[in-house]
Amino acid sequence: MSLYAELADRLREHIEHGFYKPGDKLPSVRQLATEHGVSISTVQEAYRTLETERLVEAKPKSGYFVPSQPHNDNLPHTSRPPQRPLDVSQWEQVLNLLSNRPANTRIQLQHAAPDMTVSTLTPLLKSLSDLHRQHPDWGLGYGDIRGHIELREQLSRLAVASGCQLHHDDVVVTSGCQEALSVCLRAVSAPGDIIAIESPCFYGAMQAIKAANLKALEIPTHPEHGISLEALQLALDQWPIKAILVTPTANNPLGYVMPEDKKQALYKLAQEYDIAIIEDDIYGDLTYEFPRPRAIKAFDEDGRVLLCSSFSKTVAPGMRVGWIAAGRYRDQVTHIKYVSSSMCPTLSQIALAKFLRLGGYDRHIRKIRNTYATSRDQLLQAIKIHLPNATRVTCPAGGFVLWVEFPPEVDTTKLTEQAQEHGVAIASGSLFSATGKYRSCCRLNYSDQTAELRTEGIKIIAQLIKAEHPNLF
Amino acid sequence: MSLYAELADRLREHIEHGFYKPGDKLPSVRQLATEHGVSISTVQEAYRTLETERLVEAKPKSGYFVPSQPHNDNLPHTSRPPQRPLDVSQWEQVLNLLSNRPANTRIQLQHAAPDMTVSTLTPLLKSLSDLHRQHPDWGLGYGDIRGHIELREQLSRLAVASGCQLHHDDVVVTSGCQEALSVCLRAVSAPGDIIAIESPCFYGAMQAIKAANLKALEIPTHPEHGISLEALQLALDQWPIKAILVTPTANNPLGYVMPEDKKQALYKLAQEYDIAIIEDDIYGDLTYEFPRPRAIKAFDEDGRVLLCSSFSKTVAPGMRVGWIAAGRYRDQVTHIKYVSSSMCPTLSQIALAKFLRLGGYDRHIRKIRNTYATSRDQLLQAIKIHLPNATRVTCPAGGFVLWVEFPPEVDTTKLTEQAQEHGVAIASGSLFSATGKYRSCCRLNYSDQTAELRTEGIKIIAQLIKAEHPNLF
Repeated sequence: MSLYAELADRLREHIEHGFYKPGDKLPSVRQLATEHGVSISTVQEAYRTLETERLVEAKPKSGYFVPSQPHNDNLPHTSRPPQRPLDVSQWEQVLNLLSNRPANTRIQLQHAAPDMTVSTLTPLLKSLSDLHRQHPDWGLGYGDIRGHIELREQLSRLAVASGCQLHHDDVVVTSGCQEALSVCLRAVSAPGDIIAIESPCFYGAMQAIKAANLKALEIPTHPEHGISLEALQLALDQWPIKAILVTPTANNPLGYVMPEDKKQALYKLAQEYDIAIIEDDIYGDLTYEFPRPRAIKAFDEDGRVLLCSSFSKTVAPGMRVGWIAAGRYRDQVTHIKYVSSSMCPTLSQIALAKFLRLGGYDRHIRKIRNTYATSRDQLLQAIKIHLPNATRVTCPAGGFVLWVEFPPEVDTTKLTEQAQEHGVAIASGSLFSATGKYRSCCRLNYSDQTAELRTEGIKIIAQLIKAEHPNLF
Repeated sequence: MSLYAELADRLREHIEHGFYKPGDKLPSVRQLATEHGVSISTVQEAYRTLETERLVEAKPKSGYFVPSQPHNDNLPHTSRPPQRPLDVSQWEQVLNLLSNRPANTRIQLQHAAPDMTVSTLTPLLKSLSDLHRQHPDWGLGYGDIRGHIELREQLSRLAVASGCQLHHDDVVVTSGCQEALSVCLRAVSAPGDIIAIESPCFYGAMQAIKAANLKALEIPTHPEHGISLEALQLALDQWPIKAILVTPTANNPLGYVMPEDKKQALYKLAQEYDIAIIEDDIYGDLTYEFPRPRAIKAFDEDGRVLLCSSFSKTVAPGMRVGWIAAGRYRDQVTHIKYVSSSMCPTLSQIALAKFLRLGGYDRHIRKIRNTYATSRDQLLQAIKIHLPNATRVTCPAGGFVLWVEFPPEVDTTKLTEQAQEHGVAIASGSLFSATGKYRSCCRLNYSDQTAELRTEGIKIIAQLIKAEHPNLF
């Protein structure tokens, strides 16, 4: 390994482990050269490497710093959903979104598919291809209904990064996170029960609530700190809530990471009222900070947290591999998973297990989360420049979607239709409410198209708004 | 094509299209030689080909005949299940069956996995491997939630063989037939509803009933004609049944094909009482007669039949590709399929579509159903020779499982445990009842092990029974 790479490694480690904090000034080039007995240009090269990884930033005439979190003074408002349990509607709109044909859409800001063109996925695809060629018969038979043992072992190792101690027997592999959420909802509740959710909330989770004959109670949610614990406690006092379903780490659609003390407080609340927490961690590994934040599951003393995740956002949705660590609900989860779809295809599980074991997954995540962080800043910049001044927007701490709140006169249901006619797809806000609220909001992704295309999409949206509401500009 | 192959083709066509019926004498060798202007040995070669396909049988000194259905004078009794709707139990036993480790089991008669070693599957595996090598990116993204269009087109063509007119938009692809059944149950009913089923009944269907918070009403079922329409009508008069779930073509576990007039009558009954029929056709293409019998769905005038099937029994369960033709319930089915597991992996769907399009599936089915028919006779022979005289057994008209009814003093739950200790796995009868009935029955498969191993398994079972009940021999 070259000298500069070695030095970059050491600095990266110090930053990632919090030895230097956001905003801290880093040692000067001269200081490091002396300390490590290397040349000035070697230190400069090391800093340049870390700059491309966004771990340091150069300030002219001041030196190198650990970047602070960008300050955001135009956050969306804390949500104010209806204060009673309701049946979920909006399926027609979800179906519409899911049926969107790429052929008609040049600029796709509506979906939440990851970037799947990165070279760090090559080893996985290669091993999947090799498995199909060398061991096609491995994929033919019925496999373990809990999932392939090699994958479950790797998943229990991966869980350490989110602070969870899982045995491979605690893990049940599913057909993606959608099945995980659906199975967990059915495992912890009976028809008619009430599930508390964040508001806005991922539409797939709400549709699973609807299909399981449950009612959704949307809880006010802050765009940077997550579900309001005060509002949740009031709701728990008022309604016989059976479980809380949350996405606390790199939330979809808001992008926040719930602070750790709030995660702990949420867990304590669940304990106090003796209810289950279904924790959707699908974007958890895509937070931009390192090490990744701990999951609520990390604080689980009595098995009431059902952690759901998948490789759909970190690797590729087409893998259809997700999982559940269901704590005390493991047996119910195993039963419902079996009746839902029997076992999952074996070869993708084996290939993913190998990808994890050989470090390919870590390499991929390290690369892709930097890409997403860069794309976030680009998209935020385009929004700031082109959209109405009064537009509010989240600054995600992970994942690859953000949430836009337009001035109230903008109707995103209409805007979505108009944008579609111009080849731009966005996800209208009402998808993320059980009852069609958030009609002046939308979700935009910044994962798998170029910054140029995204900017072009934003410009088209701006023009459409301008045509109806010139006063906003 | 050689002369004998051409002649065999012509004779095969005549037999398969019913020009010669079961039991009919076929033209003599001399007669055919004269008619077709070919040599005696050519005709003999053609007949030998058809003999290996079990389409003709030679009777010494009498000539060649179309085989009659083997007569069966020791059929199991018509079932007499409890006459009220009940909660399904037996999950522990099902889990036990599913968790069976091949490592501990030399002779596997318990599962219902097809023979996956046949060469006719090679083109499918080859194209799946090619797809993974040449177009790995096709498998990465979210696909159509209704299933890949090419596969749905091929499935609508395949449906013609079972008498069904389906448009590709009528078809929703699922993760195997288990998901299909589970989705259909949830689409046609609400928690607490009653579903009428055959008795004995496939355990996976019953566990899906349990998980959907439904009640099962088991209906008496004849081992050769299927569900009793008289008993069903009485039940319909007495209970608010929401749907009937049946496997009328190559039933699991009994193996019968419900006669076509009874299928029609069942459909009329459903019309009269205005309820849905969930038709499990998973073994339908594996019936030993040609052309295959029509599905109940073929008589569906008003979209009340939800046809469920998959490639798990015809090709390989590890493919995890099934489908639903849901008639008037299509929209509900699409919704529940989406929340259950989002879409299915794309590459297996494309590979299967190609397998169907190029005729590989037809070739495979033609070969494998003959293999199964031969194995059925071998297993029936072994049962007749080794098991107690009073043992009753079905003679399946398709698929690869049969049902054994021992004298009442034999407890198959105990027998299953004992056999397992000797490396033989069987599926105990109580798995196939909602409430643990059929304790003197078991299901045996004859798909994927050798006749020698199956015979050895039967001998071990016979010894175990003999040790406890010497009087039975």
